[in-house]
Amino acid sequence: MSEKIVIVGGVAAGPKAACRVKRLMPEAEVTLVDQDTLISYGGCGIPYYISGDVADESALRSTSFHVLRDESYFEKYKGVRTRTSTRALAIDRVNKKLRVLDLTSNTEEEIDYDKLVLTTGSQPYVLPIPGAELDGVFTIANLHKAIEIKDRIAKGKVGKAVVIGGGAIGIEMAESLTDLWGVETSIVEFKKQLLPGVIEWSLSAMLCKHLRENNVDVFLGESALEIVGEDGRVRSVRTPERTLEADLVIMAVGVRAQSQLAEDAGLRVSEMGGIVVNRRMQTSDPSIYAAGDCVKIANLISGKNFYAPFGSLANKEGRVVGDNIAGIPTTFDGAVGSFIMKTFEVCVGSTGLSMEMARAEGYDADFSLTAPADRAHFYPSQNIICCVMVFDRRTRKVLGVQAFGPMGDNISARINAAAAYLSKGATIDEFANLEMAYAPPFSSAIDTINAAAYVAENLCDGRLRQITMEDFYCWMEDTSSRPEWVSLDVRHEKQAEPFVQKYGADVWLSLPDDQIRERYRELPTDKMLIIFCNAGSRSYEIQIFLDSVGITNSLVLCGGYNVIKRIGAEWLP
Amino acid sequence: MSEKIVIVGGVAAGPKAACRVKRLMPEAEVTLVDQDTLISYGGCGIPYYISGDVADESALRSTSFHVLRDESYFEKYKGVRTRTSTRALAIDRVNKKLRVLDLTSNTEEEIDYDKLVLTTGSQPYVLPIPGAELDGVFTIANLHKAIEIKDRIAKGKVGKAVVIGGGAIGIEMAESLTDLWGVETSIVEFKKQLLPGVIEWSLSAMLCKHLRENNVDVFLGESALEIVGEDGRVRSVRTPERTLEADLVIMAVGVRAQSQLAEDAGLRVSEMGGIVVNRRMQTSDPSIYAAGDCVKIANLISGKNFYAPFGSLANKEGRVVGDNIAGIPTTFDGAVGSFIMKTFEVCVGSTGLSMEMARAEGYDADFSLTAPADRAHFYPSQNIICCVMVFDRRTRKVLGVQAFGPMGDNISARINAAAAYLSKGATIDEFANLEMAYAPPFSSAIDTINAAAYVAENLCDGRLRQITMEDFYCWMEDTSSRPEWVSLDVRHEKQAEPFVQKYGADVWLSLPDDQIRERYRELPTDKMLIIFCNAGSRSYEIQIFLDSVGITNSLVLCGGYNVIKRIGAEWLP
Repeated sequence: MSEKIVIVGGVAAGPKAACRVKRLMPEAEVTLVDQDTLISYGGCGIPYYISGDVADESALRSTSFHVLRDESYFEKYKGVRTRTSTRALAIDRVNKKLRVLDLTSNTEEEIDYDKLVLTTGSQPYVLPIPGAELDGVFTIANLHKAIEIKDRIAKGKVGKAVVIGGGAIGIEMAESLTDLWGVETSIVEFKKQLLPGVIEWSLSAMLCKHLRENNVDVFLGESALEIVGEDGRVRSVRTPERTLEADLVIMAVGVRAQSQLAEDAGLRVSEMGGIVVNRRMQTSDPSIYAAGDCVKIANLISGKNFYAPFGSLANKEGRVVGDNIAGIPTTFDGAVGSFIMKTFEVCVGSTGLSMEMARAEGYDADFSLTAPADRAHFYPSQNIICCVMVFDRRTRKVLGVQAFGPMGDNISARINAAAAYLSKGATIDEFANLEMAYAPPFSSAIDTINAAAYVAENLCDGRLRQITMEDFYCWMEDTSSRPEWVSLDVRHEKQAEPFVQKYGADVWLSLPDDQIRERYRELPTDKMLIIFCNAGSRSYEIQIFLDSVGITNSLVLCGGYNVIKRIGAEWLP
Repeated sequence: MSEKIVIVGGVAAGPKAACRVKRLMPEAEVTLVDQDTLISYGGCGIPYYISGDVADESALRSTSFHVLRDESYFEKYKGVRTRTSTRALAIDRVNKKLRVLDLTSNTEEEIDYDKLVLTTGSQPYVLPIPGAELDGVFTIANLHKAIEIKDRIAKGKVGKAVVIGGGAIGIEMAESLTDLWGVETSIVEFKKQLLPGVIEWSLSAMLCKHLRENNVDVFLGESALEIVGEDGRVRSVRTPERTLEADLVIMAVGVRAQSQLAEDAGLRVSEMGGIVVNRRMQTSDPSIYAAGDCVKIANLISGKNFYAPFGSLANKEGRVVGDNIAGIPTTFDGAVGSFIMKTFEVCVGSTGLSMEMARAEGYDADFSLTAPADRAHFYPSQNIICCVMVFDRRTRKVLGVQAFGPMGDNISARINAAAAYLSKGATIDEFANLEMAYAPPFSSAIDTINAAAYVAENLCDGRLRQITMEDFYCWMEDTSSRPEWVSLDVRHEKQAEPFVQKYGADVWLSLPDDQIRERYRELPTDKMLIIFCNAGSRSYEIQIFLDSVGITNSLVLCGGYNVIKRIGAEWLP
């Protein structure tokens, strides 16, 4: 008798596991169950479907050779039986039966399994605030919701929108609504920055500036207190500071694992949700596997379990499930949590732990901030990449890397290399020598990622003393608050001039780097000197020189004006 | 007394070592010696200077803030003394003295050192053929040569050029001459493919097609026998097949380490040239360091020493020299040999060992060839990346990765990640789960690199039996030679039709993949079936299905039509 394999959940990990196992065990009877009518779609494409970049939802459900991945596709091309509109109700582990409800006929039945796979995905959090149930309030839960949102916009029913949540999905949705539809969109984020906990304040501030320049209003440090309706339809969103009119509200405040079915069956589920699996993606019941957004996986940096609901990981996990059911002992060892996002004309990516995560995990974490060109500076087209490297002072291991730059693949080229390297425990010293393929049209001889490691080494070894960009901004927003500081601008006098004009030489001192060796005696010794240049590297050299002549009251502003220009500030002259 | 550090060679590794050590030891007396007048330039930028993309040679010698890196720059900004036009003649290791010749005054003198650094670089091979000394025959030895070449072109003296050597520098030079100057350019390569030994035949064939489409003639498998001159000036290049007229000949047939100074001083030098150093970049004399194109370094894959004369490595090695002289025990552990190149509108990159290198090293090497889209297939802009993954069947380790695609950073995004991962010994199974940052505008949920590893796993485990593209081309160029083969085209009938028309159904059989499950009994069982689709993945599924019904006489053409389209062929209908 052929083996019966039943899979619950048909978006990403499920179909992947189903097809892989059927390829490996052509004799097996593979059944994919989903309560939805739409299966096997690229959920990460939803913002691009809503924006119109992807014209039709069916494109999200098609293969690269334009065949729709519906029930008959799985039957005909893959030999996998699918049962849509069928909800899994309970697992009888003793008798190996899955109880399901056919939503069309409203009848219950039992499906026998030898191996069961749970790929039940995630569901969006809904904030417990008044009005969350109003017509016009959406989460990005599935493709149906996306179709409904796009339908409303296309019919001209949406003039103003509020996105609650400044994470990746919220920002992508804000772009979708604004860019092609011209919907007046605001983002309301409870924390003080976009992508909180994921990227460093300075990169987040650049992203925020770019969103505002593209007509997305961003309100940080404000929580949505209430969604106000009229006749059951949404009208506005109220925060402590303001009321924002809205015909459409997108709630994008995170997702959680759908692990109820597993929990009810007595499988091990972690405290915060998320089915517990081993490296073969097996649950606490060896006949039951799980993969995708419903599981917790190992974080390859901290070694602890974490929740990483990413479509790319779901596919990989699903394949490992297929392998192991078929007796091939591959493993999914975990992830580092890579992330990348397009926002209008810019791109931000990260991998590994942010400073916030690293400190929460108990690391002695610090970070470098650099802003070099992404290719040989003499090559005609080049851009600045702002790069953050988070490292552990004790072990010298790189914990995370983040980067911000213009849209393109130049961020991927660094984030992917960093992800691969840090997943293997590479140190800042190894990153200093990481081999990045070099030719002038692609990189610098010393690539962004190497430069980030150089600065990290210098910080870690105490050769470089820095002030963070965030602290520098605090000071500049109120220079009177820290009278003991003075900016030492080592750029060309012409570049420094507007600052000196605005702030006076007691706050902003201009002394170009080629003159410092002769003129350092003019520097004040009773104040902390904040050394300031375009990217930070010349400031570092000046700090070393000043140290060598006994002037040690200095801090380097890493990233320098290249970073400030991208963040913007009211205090800029 | 301050320590005396003398550095011989001022292009890349030398200046880097000089500046680093001076930063770390501000008290040290650092002297940089070079026989040239031009120092500290981006040698890899020479093709872009010649093409005119970089307008002025001084751009190659300037910092990112537009200061020329000449003698006074090193003095004023870096505190490093430079002595240009000064040739190092000999090292007196016992008394720690470097004997030099001042080329301006033609006087010899001795310079004391405590630590000596050799960064003497490489020199191009000159083919021992008649006419190599003629006026108009150049190697890309240094910036002076480049200036002279550009000068000749700008003065209209060059109508036709021949590049001898189809390696990276030869190809880059051919593009420079053709693209902006309209010089009629030919490449003559002794081996049967461009970039021989570096990339797989199919990727090389794509590159060749692209060069020809851009008016560069390419002659493969032809050696330059003689350079013919008239009145001392070059006139033509003769090969066994033809005579190519030329006003300019670029000889780009490789470089070798300049290690004579080291050898004469009794330092350990490897048999084929290249100073032997330890991981701290110390030569066999602990007071003498070496870095850059004059040394051999460890190959992180094979563990053996290899020669990797790349500017990016030179800089990293130079920094390690600086560290170690200053007492910081950093190491340069070696490299995997990453390479990337722009050619007109395309880009080719590689890292690690090619099949040829891997077999020469004794690995049980095999490779996968894939041709997927570089981002989500539903995302509006996407391109095919052709990817080769070389692996060892015994250890399952990935030995190398190569990729070809349209110009941009999408190749870097894969090659850099692969380089980082394989330098740590990652297997094909680990590559299958390598975390590539995913969002539809940047990649697929299953990235190119993961797909390459999937195919490699299937090959390695015997689940996929393939025919190489090269063998398929041999057959198609003479289908009569292998009557036992037939192409089974599983694409849409419309796509297969022109092939069936041209070759007849006994050579090219059309049977779309959605019909095979019903119609497989029609297939011939006395011939080898070459399963053919767009990229190879559907062919793989069909092979598995056919195996399951007992039809095992099949091979998959990995890469499929996506690869063939990019290679081109006279036999295409």
